[in-house]
Amino acid sequence: MNRQQLIEQIKLKKSFLCVGLDPDMEKIPDFLKQYPDPIFEFNKRIIDATKDLCVAYKPNSAFYESYGVKGLQSLIATWKYLPTDCLNIIDAKRGDIGNTSDKYARAFFDEATSGMSFDAITVTPYMGNDSVTPYLKYDGKWVIILALTSSVGSKDFQYLNTGDGYLYEAVIKKANTWAGADRIMYVVGATKSTEFTDIRKYAPANFLLVPGVGAQGGSLEDVCKYGITKDCGLLVNSSRGIIYASNGEDFADAARAEALKLQKEMQAELEKAGII
Amino acid sequence: MNRQQLIEQIKLKKSFLCVGLDPDMEKIPDFLKQYPDPIFEFNKRIIDATKDLCVAYKPNSAFYESYGVKGLQSLIATWKYLPTDCLNIIDAKRGDIGNTSDKYARAFFDEATSGMSFDAITVTPYMGNDSVTPYLKYDGKWVIILALTSSVGSKDFQYLNTGDGYLYEAVIKKANTWAGADRIMYVVGATKSTEFTDIRKYAPANFLLVPGVGAQGGSLEDVCKYGITKDCGLLVNSSRGIIYASNGEDFADAARAEALKLQKEMQAELEKAGII
Repeated sequence: MNRQQLIEQIKLKKSFLCVGLDPDMEKIPDFLKQYPDPIFEFNKRIIDATKDLCVAYKPNSAFYESYGVKGLQSLIATWKYLPTDCLNIIDAKRGDIGNTSDKYARAFFDEATSGMSFDAITVTPYMGNDSVTPYLKYDGKWVIILALTSSVGSKDFQYLNTGDGYLYEAVIKKANTWAGADRIMYVVGATKSTEFTDIRKYAPANFLLVPGVGAQGGSLEDVCKYGITKDCGLLVNSSRGIIYASNGEDFADAARAEALKLQKEMQAELEKAGII
Repeated sequence: MNRQQLIEQIKLKKSFLCVGLDPDMEKIPDFLKQYPDPIFEFNKRIIDATKDLCVAYKPNSAFYESYGVKGLQSLIATWKYLPTDCLNIIDAKRGDIGNTSDKYARAFFDEATSGMSFDAITVTPYMGNDSVTPYLKYDGKWVIILALTSSVGSKDFQYLNTGDGYLYEAVIKKANTWAGADRIMYVVGATKSTEFTDIRKYAPANFLLVPGVGAQGGSLEDVCKYGITKDCGLLVNSSRGIIYASNGEDFADAARAEALKLQKEMQAELEKAGII
């Protein structure tokens, strides 16, 4: 899905919601455990219940990898089930030298070898240029680079003053020289809403993938106040707040209700910004 | 394998060689492709041919992931086959917020859920404290944190001057507050040998995992000149230089010959430093 198609979906669905698919066997409803692939069954029902309300899905690779071969099979089955009118993001936060990034690109972008081909992958910038550019060889695919994250540890290095701004600013400035806003997005945590003004100086047009609304305490209103652009430019993710809204048999309905709440708030923000 | 055991193995084998297991179907000998799991067959023969000459093995996760479910099965089979007198490192370069790092830790350290339990994992520091500490909850396991890497892209961010030294120095200083030299190693590329003196100021006792000898152009002599400690303190990795020394039926013998060459050089360095 390219930038123009993503913007169209945002306007059509009146939503810039990304649903994070972080399945955990300790949290999914008991009745699903009778199925041969409980994680896929869980995701399938979440997807069915939310797909008209969101524009992206983001499976977090760690949750699948923790279950070994079965987990990877669940991830592949989930990828196959993801609707084509949503951007499919694998949240993998990979980062390695060029010849290794080539292999990670195959793992997530090349269905012929790995069984999966997501639209976008999250990557970590520490190793620089050659750790990111191999993904850009795949026409039409996106890289989503960590800039300013939402967790406690973000203070350790991302706010170091480099003489060229904070490290997260230096990352954005440098990565902007690798590709444009049609290929690169940045991760910026919702808990950092006041920094959005600053980030928009360096990334005026890039889409920002924004985790941290909900469980981590970020505010959608603040994110929009400081981060929204004329094309929206935001994908706001919610994982736990939606998928674990209930752990009973009604979990899919509860997930829909939470997603609908966010979609309504997003619609109001899109209207306020004159986008729809 | 703990620090003391690792040092004992280095003295016993007169080697601080780590063999990187980066199997690539386009490079492994044709005759192996008749087996149900050619990657495992390749690794098995490499391990058999080198296990008395090295003290560590380091499968690079990307190479396995690129083959999807079959690749993961090969990785698990390889992990099971790794000798117990070698440190088993998974080169995964993961890094994410705490609740996600918990899952990556399970993926690589918890055999009961994932089928694998390596001794050590490489991690990327960009997200700070909570992206690294979940691995340290596993008694006796190591984290190996990226500091100064060997590739071109290392210039982009690792050398940014943070006011507290270069970014890679700030990473080492901060990570030293998370755990000691019995739990944390650092990745420092062999192509950066002159920076080893500087790194030893901040990490006097930590083991350094050193890629980049061979294919990437680093010199073992320089690495030792500036980086060796009284306990050795180095694990020097070679991947391509050993495992692809030949692509014929003699590949295991050729791998052994290359490993032996490095082991002999390492023995001389250990003698020069008075360690053996």
